[in-house]
Amino acid sequence: MNEVAGRRSRSGGGASRRAERTAISFETARFIQRNIPNFEILNEEALQIIEHNAETVLEEIGVNFVENPAALARWRDAGADVQGERVHIPRGLARKLISTAPKSYTQHARNPERNVEVGGRNLVLAPVYGPPFVRDMEGGRRYATLEDFQNFVKLGYMSKWLHHSGGTVCEPTDVPVNKRHLDMLLAHMTLSDKPFMGSVTEPSRAQDSVDMASILFGKDFVQSNTVMTSLININSPMVFDGIMMGALEVYAANNQASIVSPFIVGGAMAPVTVAGTLTQVLAEILAGVSYSQLVRPGSPVVAGAFVTSIDMNSGAPTFGTPEAAHITYGAGQLVRRLGLPYRSGGSFCGSKLPDAQAAYETANSLNMALLAGVNFMLHACGWLEGGLVSSYEKFVMDADQLGTLHHLAQGIQIDENGQAMDAIREVGPGGHYLGCAHTQANFKSAFWRSDLLDYKPFETWAEEGSRDTQTLANERVKKLLADYQAPEIDPGTREALEAFVARRKAEMPDAFI
Amino acid sequence: MNEVAGRRSRSGGGASRRAERTAISFETARFIQRNIPNFEILNEEALQIIEHNAETVLEEIGVNFVENPAALARWRDAGADVQGERVHIPRGLARKLISTAPKSYTQHARNPERNVEVGGRNLVLAPVYGPPFVRDMEGGRRYATLEDFQNFVKLGYMSKWLHHSGGTVCEPTDVPVNKRHLDMLLAHMTLSDKPFMGSVTEPSRAQDSVDMASILFGKDFVQSNTVMTSLININSPMVFDGIMMGALEVYAANNQASIVSPFIVGGAMAPVTVAGTLTQVLAEILAGVSYSQLVRPGSPVVAGAFVTSIDMNSGAPTFGTPEAAHITYGAGQLVRRLGLPYRSGGSFCGSKLPDAQAAYETANSLNMALLAGVNFMLHACGWLEGGLVSSYEKFVMDADQLGTLHHLAQGIQIDENGQAMDAIREVGPGGHYLGCAHTQANFKSAFWRSDLLDYKPFETWAEEGSRDTQTLANERVKKLLADYQAPEIDPGTREALEAFVARRKAEMPDAFI
Repeated sequence: MNEVAGRRSRSGGGASRRAERTAISFETARFIQRNIPNFEILNEEALQIIEHNAETVLEEIGVNFVENPAALARWRDAGADVQGERVHIPRGLARKLISTAPKSYTQHARNPERNVEVGGRNLVLAPVYGPPFVRDMEGGRRYATLEDFQNFVKLGYMSKWLHHSGGTVCEPTDVPVNKRHLDMLLAHMTLSDKPFMGSVTEPSRAQDSVDMASILFGKDFVQSNTVMTSLININSPMVFDGIMMGALEVYAANNQASIVSPFIVGGAMAPVTVAGTLTQVLAEILAGVSYSQLVRPGSPVVAGAFVTSIDMNSGAPTFGTPEAAHITYGAGQLVRRLGLPYRSGGSFCGSKLPDAQAAYETANSLNMALLAGVNFMLHACGWLEGGLVSSYEKFVMDADQLGTLHHLAQGIQIDENGQAMDAIREVGPGGHYLGCAHTQANFKSAFWRSDLLDYKPFETWAEEGSRDTQTLANERVKKLLADYQAPEIDPGTREALEAFVARRKAEMPDAFI
Repeated sequence: MNEVAGRRSRSGGGASRRAERTAISFETARFIQRNIPNFEILNEEALQIIEHNAETVLEEIGVNFVENPAALARWRDAGADVQGERVHIPRGLARKLISTAPKSYTQHARNPERNVEVGGRNLVLAPVYGPPFVRDMEGGRRYATLEDFQNFVKLGYMSKWLHHSGGTVCEPTDVPVNKRHLDMLLAHMTLSDKPFMGSVTEPSRAQDSVDMASILFGKDFVQSNTVMTSLININSPMVFDGIMMGALEVYAANNQASIVSPFIVGGAMAPVTVAGTLTQVLAEILAGVSYSQLVRPGSPVVAGAFVTSIDMNSGAPTFGTPEAAHITYGAGQLVRRLGLPYRSGGSFCGSKLPDAQAAYETANSLNMALLAGVNFMLHACGWLEGGLVSSYEKFVMDADQLGTLHHLAQGIQIDENGQAMDAIREVGPGGHYLGCAHTQANFKSAFWRSDLLDYKPFETWAEEGSRDTQTLANERVKKLLADYQAPEIDPGTREALEAFVARRKAEMPDAFI
């Protein structure tokens, strides 16, 4: 049995190692390869107006690269007009610089079957990122801990429709701020075998991420392959801060991918109109992506757009709104015209609970992201309360819904089997198709089926306790965590990772802000 | 005050009439006029294959018109090959016949401001149709009564984003089967001033509908204008029964619109593949719509597609699935190529409760219907448990979400104000837009805002009782029903309608099956 289950193990021996080698592997779907068109909301004239205006913003207004003299020097050398920290980028320069960025790239996972292709017609799904709180049915809302973090990595690993382990699935607030990234990376690297993200909160933490990845994949492999995709936010409007850009510089220099992404609540960090927001988003993408190419031409980069609207009464950000959809569709068209991979979308909602509001808003967001041509969807499951909370129940609810995107993206089969003329002939007027040969041959694969939602007869459902979706999800979370088994890993590699974490923690005093 | 509030009243006098004339009118949005493209999932080759196959079905396999000798005679006269009840329609004949059907038509409401245009780039939204049960938070699931029916008509009247009062918003099971339609029509005609649907369950009930509409609008008006759009289901696969066709004949003869609609659970009433289902749907639409034109050339007709998938484990119909989306998108393309108005979509879900499952499935369905180019959406709000239940809470939850479709359909403003270059110049890098002139000028109309969902800070929300969406909706239902005021109606007209209902009821013994 060991020989079969453990045949991919690179070393052997020892009782604890034997347990690892018998670990089962959970099924993961291949990243989505679209066989359907994108939804194109802007016409050619509108696209050209926005593109022209974005170049006007870069040239006339300019963008700020703050606390980063090296960046200003790079811009000056490239031909920009630099005044103080303000960089005016002549019309056309940014477009020229980004031409060296790859149209798509492979992000390697330690399990090669789980490598992902970011770009083209593909869609890669990664979980929620960043919440300081978690929520579940029993414990309510509370600060997230490292144990929560590890639980979410486990859930992500076991989610069939999730291709990517993500990054900060929640903030482990019980670990010092300056050491969290080490525990987070260790969890992604050992509890899952899906691809993951690196730390961006200090350039030194980006370097730790590269160093740990070099232990996991080998140093040479990391220098010639992309093994991390990390999230670099722009301080909209039009400010690129030294810390985030410092992390981008580390990743670009090491051939690792960055998502360069405006983070915008419309009406606050961008104009209140959609076309105005798209103009600013495009200007920020042009500046940020071209800067990545100034650091290292050819380094992989994803153009992001995290944009939502605002409630005019309370000032709260709102999600799943029509304006967010407009921007997501429009930004997709603009990014495709740049020839870059596109990051947007997510399981966005403002609701405090994984209730109907959460699901309406999330479904609105997921559907628009698929049709908008998104290539990398961060926050694809688990997002609650405007991103303040990682929800256990919503994580598995959303992860189940991601299956619908896979099936939608397959498009419509039009071959002879798809046409089903023999079935229509066989059944004829007034008949039924349940027993016909064509139905029997196609039944299992014909329809997407939820692994979570309720399809039972009313009486059965009532007898079983009239459970709502949140209750079903709560039971599923418990079952998944109870069934979890870690993917096998070379014990020497794990020991080296643990030693690195221990050493780096010992080198630094604890910091909590 | 009477003069202002009652100025549209056609007659006056009497204390009870004075009360009516002071009734307030609730705001209703104009039907959706799309300024965004449709989503086209099938390419030209696939469309031609399906169109060719549908004609093959009509010619080679044929369709059944059962218990309807007059229909068989009409088909024979039109050139079809009729054998028993089977009608073989030669390739091209159905397409030729439907060329007399209007591309769009006006359905008049008794309040002319609420007339709707069915067809073109428009989308008209109507509530759930047909459930024998209702559900609310206090009473749970129970058989629907006439009081429930009246409540749902009131809620529909007060729903800003609902353009149409619908038909059987629930089955009033406390009224004899053969008399229900009279009470239902009276409720739509007196408790609302939005357009409505006629009865289809017997040809005589269709005639009662025409007769009551003639009292409400005037007989001449009804003969030269469309004042009802009624739902004629096809017994898929490919059976047109005498009762439904008899109702269609009454409506067509009186210039009233019918929705000719396959009702399909894929894998049971149509092939298990999407292209096969689309072929059958198109064949059924071609046969049904062309039959309406045989009865009266030029009579208004809508091509429908109610199609969903099936759960392979339980056999239950499933909703909000990717396959339903494929069919809805594809059928939209096929119907547009016929030059007909298109009915599909709805607030479909299989969930027993208005919970997250209900909202995911509903949002999936609503979004696809908007992008599929649907012109008439029945079931746009209130559908629960596979259509067995009209849910009070879900009615107002869905009706609120319909606002997102209105805003999505507006598309992106690309004029100077939309471009917002002055705002970007004014704010600059590192600034914020909340106070700028452009934001102030556009803030109120820029973003869609829910009238129901929770946008409050966490602390406020917690202090107010941590209400979920269902609880918020329950409170809204109660407030709406408490605030309801009937639209004004000419008292003589109402008395005539009531007299007609009393007379017809007296003419028939009660029937409960």
